[in-house]
Amino acid sequence: MPSNNYSKKALSLHKKLKGKIMIASKIRNLKPKDMQLIYTPGVAAVSEEIFRHPNQIFSLTSKSNNVAIITDGTRILGLGNIGPYAALPVMEGKSVLYKEFGGIDAFPLCLNTSDKVQIISAIQAIEPFFGAINLEDIESPKVMEISDELEEKVSIPVFHDDRHGTSVVALAALLNSLKLVKKQLSSIKIVIAGAGSAGYGICKLFKFAGCQNIVVVDSCGSIYNGRSHNMNKYKKDIANSTNTKKEKGHLLEILKNSDVFIGVSSVKNLLIPKMIQNMNRDPIIFALTNPEPEIIPEIAKKAGAKIIATGSYLYPNKVNNALVFPHLMRSILDMRIKKISLNLLLVTAKAIAKTVSDRELDYNHIIPEMTDKRLQKNISLALSKLR
Amino acid sequence: MPSNNYSKKALSLHKKLKGKIMIASKIRNLKPKDMQLIYTPGVAAVSEEIFRHPNQIFSLTSKSNNVAIITDGTRILGLGNIGPYAALPVMEGKSVLYKEFGGIDAFPLCLNTSDKVQIISAIQAIEPFFGAINLEDIESPKVMEISDELEEKVSIPVFHDDRHGTSVVALAALLNSLKLVKKQLSSIKIVIAGAGSAGYGICKLFKFAGCQNIVVVDSCGSIYNGRSHNMNKYKKDIANSTNTKKEKGHLLEILKNSDVFIGVSSVKNLLIPKMIQNMNRDPIIFALTNPEPEIIPEIAKKAGAKIIATGSYLYPNKVNNALVFPHLMRSILDMRIKKISLNLLLVTAKAIAKTVSDRELDYNHIIPEMTDKRLQKNISLALSKLR
Repeated sequence: MPSNNYSKKALSLHKKLKGKIMIASKIRNLKPKDMQLIYTPGVAAVSEEIFRHPNQIFSLTSKSNNVAIITDGTRILGLGNIGPYAALPVMEGKSVLYKEFGGIDAFPLCLNTSDKVQIISAIQAIEPFFGAINLEDIESPKVMEISDELEEKVSIPVFHDDRHGTSVVALAALLNSLKLVKKQLSSIKIVIAGAGSAGYGICKLFKFAGCQNIVVVDSCGSIYNGRSHNMNKYKKDIANSTNTKKEKGHLLEILKNSDVFIGVSSVKNLLIPKMIQNMNRDPIIFALTNPEPEIIPEIAKKAGAKIIATGSYLYPNKVNNALVFPHLMRSILDMRIKKISLNLLLVTAKAIAKTVSDRELDYNHIIPEMTDKRLQKNISLALSKLR
Repeated sequence: MPSNNYSKKALSLHKKLKGKIMIASKIRNLKPKDMQLIYTPGVAAVSEEIFRHPNQIFSLTSKSNNVAIITDGTRILGLGNIGPYAALPVMEGKSVLYKEFGGIDAFPLCLNTSDKVQIISAIQAIEPFFGAINLEDIESPKVMEISDELEEKVSIPVFHDDRHGTSVVALAALLNSLKLVKKQLSSIKIVIAGAGSAGYGICKLFKFAGCQNIVVVDSCGSIYNGRSHNMNKYKKDIANSTNTKKEKGHLLEILKNSDVFIGVSSVKNLLIPKMIQNMNRDPIIFALTNPEPEIIPEIAKKAGAKIIATGSYLYPNKVNNALVFPHLMRSILDMRIKKISLNLLLVTAKAIAKTVSDRELDYNHIIPEMTDKRLQKNISLALSKLR
């Protein structure tokens, strides 16, 4: 990492603030008389109204704007299984971004269990207060089973940021990158390092968007139809839908003659210069692992990478889910979308990509900044046409 | 009820606000550069610090100021079992009061299950984010079993507002009332209508405070040692520790020659004038059921009641837990109190009572107003001496 100055600054900022979020009351200058309305006896009429007309909960309470951020702390950033307590600062940060960029009230619930059944049961229990669930930094493949099972068990949408959010921002960045290097999505070879939630999500969405040649590599090498070791339900799905040539080998071999590297491996410095040198002309390198990417941008550039992106806020081309989740969730809540479909994700990715105008598009500006006000507007406009 | 004007006003206020609480970020004017500190990569240092030193979670996150308000909606105010969805406006109101009067961030989690084991398991799951638990409006005796079991299963304090809060505010109001009518706690007869959480809590605290003659009445009449019908563990405890004369009968008989009526029955208009007429001189009537009390104050007054209090904000003498929970919880969090003891509750009740000076004390002013700034100071000062 370039410097650890930001670590010290981050620690002292967190100490000063004692956490990054709080509850705010919407009642300004509460007067004794207001108590009759917000509390007893007036509130009873509001409760009775919801009891008689359950749908009124969306207009009489904060439910329609509330998101539960759920983690068990088993896969926090690239730090691994640090548990629900150490996970909290990350989830509070996520809540800040939800508020700042989406106007959403997101509650970081770090669960003191890593048992799949208990996690599902806790989420079912807390459902009433929330308009949507955001699963976050839970180990794979457990989290995907949780996500799939929850879709049947709760009546609110379940957004899985590592799977859905990462795939959208990666696709948006790739669409713009391909414009710059003048290549077609349908004819390039993409290598994805990592077969967890993010790798699986990217694989599914990229295929849906038209990629024909994807190979996913995990710690045991490439995933292909017929591989028997270190597999699970989701890796089998990957094996069945990618790597049609059944390429076998480790990252170094698989990257040969590829056009795009997408790192969601949680392994810092996984990518070495020699690997980039073996790629096709104008290599595109997305080293998305946080907090430390698969390769430092300067090193990738020296090795010949044409476009380099990371998930970190230290470098240009910040391919981070934070570009997606506040805005996409805003639309999910506003439009009462029930299910996160691949088409929804594709439309969102295209809207994000198009937010960078042709005039703005550049090797160091393939994706909008988080603060770009056009993002929200473009995404909601694009999604409204889906109806 | 005098008028339903407040019901209409409450509905329109809730519709306008879409709920009463939201999340606020503590980061003012978030700049792109701040992202490195509050999110990735800087936040990783904060997570690692908590991972290495778990106690740091109290200074680096919002945990130390967070309370989970937990209900299953089975016993909301006097409305009964209206479920977790209809319960939400009440819990949001509670959150507003926590913030306004205690500076506490309270999160209303209405649980979609009324199963005891599932409720306990959900609370255990969400523990990491919270500094304390507030159990609220859950049916009795289930809630007391939950409260008792949780004390063993979580490492944060479990405050049960219906039991603890109500007993404190009732005792505070009684201490001041007795000053006015010049009677002694140790020599009066107190009749409690209701043997749920509130009735049980009041019974325990009043006895701890020195009451010698308490009789608790439920829908089957007085509770006495030897009664066999409609009993549970907590009512057996009541039977063993009160009603030493084994008085039998319904409210009308039991109230004869009593000095104080305390209604926590959830039954509106339970108390009729004839009952008050049979009481000793200067009857004290606390009709605490919400939203509609056991007797309308005007009617009680005509029947001869000397001091009348309700839990409602429509009348003078507002004997409502809201006088207790924000301030007591403030001290619980600040002092990291682990267990809610009877002594803690007694000290708090005395501090609240003393907040009304002798000069202010009056038949219509036995208890401070919620907005009384001295409350917080007096409670925290009194509790700090407990150490």
